[in-house]
Amino acid sequence: MSIRLAIVGLGKIARDQHLGAIAATDGIDLVAVASRNAALEGFASFNDIDELLASDVWVDAVSLCTPPQGRFAQARAALAAGKHVMLEKPPGATLAEVHALEALAKAKGVTLFATWHSREAAAVEPARALLAGRTIRRVAVEWKEDVRHWHPGQAWIWEPGGLGVFDPGINALSIVTRILPETFHLVCCELFFPENRAAPIAASLAFQTASGVPVEAEFDWRQTGPQTWDIRIETEEGPVVLTHGGSRLMVDGEPRIVEEDREYRNLYRHFVSLVGDGRIDADFAPLVHVADAFMLGRRTAVEAFED
Amino acid sequence: MSIRLAIVGLGKIARDQHLGAIAATDGIDLVAVASRNAALEGFASFNDIDELLASDVWVDAVSLCTPPQGRFAQARAALAAGKHVMLEKPPGATLAEVHALEALAKAKGVTLFATWHSREAAAVEPARALLAGRTIRRVAVEWKEDVRHWHPGQAWIWEPGGLGVFDPGINALSIVTRILPETFHLVCCELFFPENRAAPIAASLAFQTASGVPVEAEFDWRQTGPQTWDIRIETEEGPVVLTHGGSRLMVDGEPRIVEEDREYRNLYRHFVSLVGDGRIDADFAPLVHVADAFMLGRRTAVEAFED
Repeated sequence: MSIRLAIVGLGKIARDQHLGAIAATDGIDLVAVASRNAALEGFASFNDIDELLASDVWVDAVSLCTPPQGRFAQARAALAAGKHVMLEKPPGATLAEVHALEALAKAKGVTLFATWHSREAAAVEPARALLAGRTIRRVAVEWKEDVRHWHPGQAWIWEPGGLGVFDPGINALSIVTRILPETFHLVCCELFFPENRAAPIAASLAFQTASGVPVEAEFDWRQTGPQTWDIRIETEEGPVVLTHGGSRLMVDGEPRIVEEDREYRNLYRHFVSLVGDGRIDADFAPLVHVADAFMLGRRTAVEAFED
Repeated sequence: MSIRLAIVGLGKIARDQHLGAIAATDGIDLVAVASRNAALEGFASFNDIDELLASDVWVDAVSLCTPPQGRFAQARAALAAGKHVMLEKPPGATLAEVHALEALAKAKGVTLFATWHSREAAAVEPARALLAGRTIRRVAVEWKEDVRHWHPGQAWIWEPGGLGVFDPGINALSIVTRILPETFHLVCCELFFPENRAAPIAASLAFQTASGVPVEAEFDWRQTGPQTWDIRIETEEGPVVLTHGGSRLMVDGEPRIVEEDREYRNLYRHFVSLVGDGRIDADFAPLVHVADAFMLGRRTAVEAFED
């Protein structure tokens, strides 16, 4: 029997990615939408999740596509009502709240899936398998994009909890934490805050793995022209390079994978399987690194940013 | 047989608290010191932990009293050498690194003790037991002290990773996370940075428990005159108040506990018992809240601070 799903938060990411991915996935059907500002023709529509949960429209699961700042109350309400929950990235505004959600999901015996869509990019699993057998010398991440193009008028990304350039940067971190055989931790960090904004527009991060391998990352939201989402891993055996957000792989100079984007379809397929098996998938390591960057980062003021 | 212990970092906290507490604790003996700037008469002295570990002075355990920014490499070296490790608070400069230390301690089968000395204050366990049976309405923390008095000339506390006013504030958080029956997470936060410093001198925090109980905290390093380290818990049954950093307890207006400070002796007694039982005690919840505060906090510049 198909999972009856509601989407909460019918914004850009829901329309660009979730609706199509749900429609293309077996075993899960959209039946309702809860959104302050929008309804979706052909589906039961509610102003918020409390209205939905109080209604006679039955759902088994909820996919939260709202900004992270208000998500805890929604996720908690859904879990408390015994619904399976899927969280867009980042899973919440704080680590403490996502730990609390995980504990609640365990207590209620329902699925919690903290998604990291970039981990579903085509090159990620092949890169992980490959790197397990190589000796890594150095990792360099470059994640540079044009915020005006990707987040037009989205005020929440500049508010506390919106994470600024870490909103895309956490995608890179979700890939690196998946493909490297070792964990790593931040050693030094610089954060660049526009003088009129509460979130950074760029960040420069130096991590080290437990055994001392350097992992460097440059995040920048001021890139115009071609966009850069690259991860370069120098290994003793040759370079392993993920480009285009993890969808293309070059190994020792040879292209290995060029594939179209299936990230969100993979996420929903995985969610269906988690619900079927009664499992939780909640790895908060990317958010841990972001919190560490805010805690350890030195702040520099840069030019004001106007949308 | 007594645990043979080395202290790494012979600074203010080691001299003020650790040396006396070790001397007063059965089952553990100081045998060596590793410190860049100081030696201790009557004990084997080394410049750093690597010299100590390479020497023929045998130690079973290491107590790290260095500032958090450089502690990972020291702790990792000690754990990798099979030594039990005790960490001063905060346990490290990042969450990722303390998670890595915990994993390493597990892999090596040695004890890791991430200490929170304020949890050993006399009122903490009685308060925890009492609150387990009460209905909490509201929690208010006030932690205000004079940084010039408590941290004279300690430059590292103002550097990234030094945490600023969260260096004392994390003591309050270590108590609140222990005594409340529910977990809580940050909802709103303001951080006050002196315009010439990289760390906050004051912070205003609004948390909520999972069930919605407000937990508010005011941290301030600009307090002169009487110092304030108070936690007030309003319960349906009456007020529960911890003052003097958790060493005094008032219940429903009546004094219950007034006791002299035994925090560090309790820590070393607990460490001896952890080592004896081969256990790890590493609760990073207070550091999670601090990282969350840096991630979610809105920054305001305030008057420059000169030592």
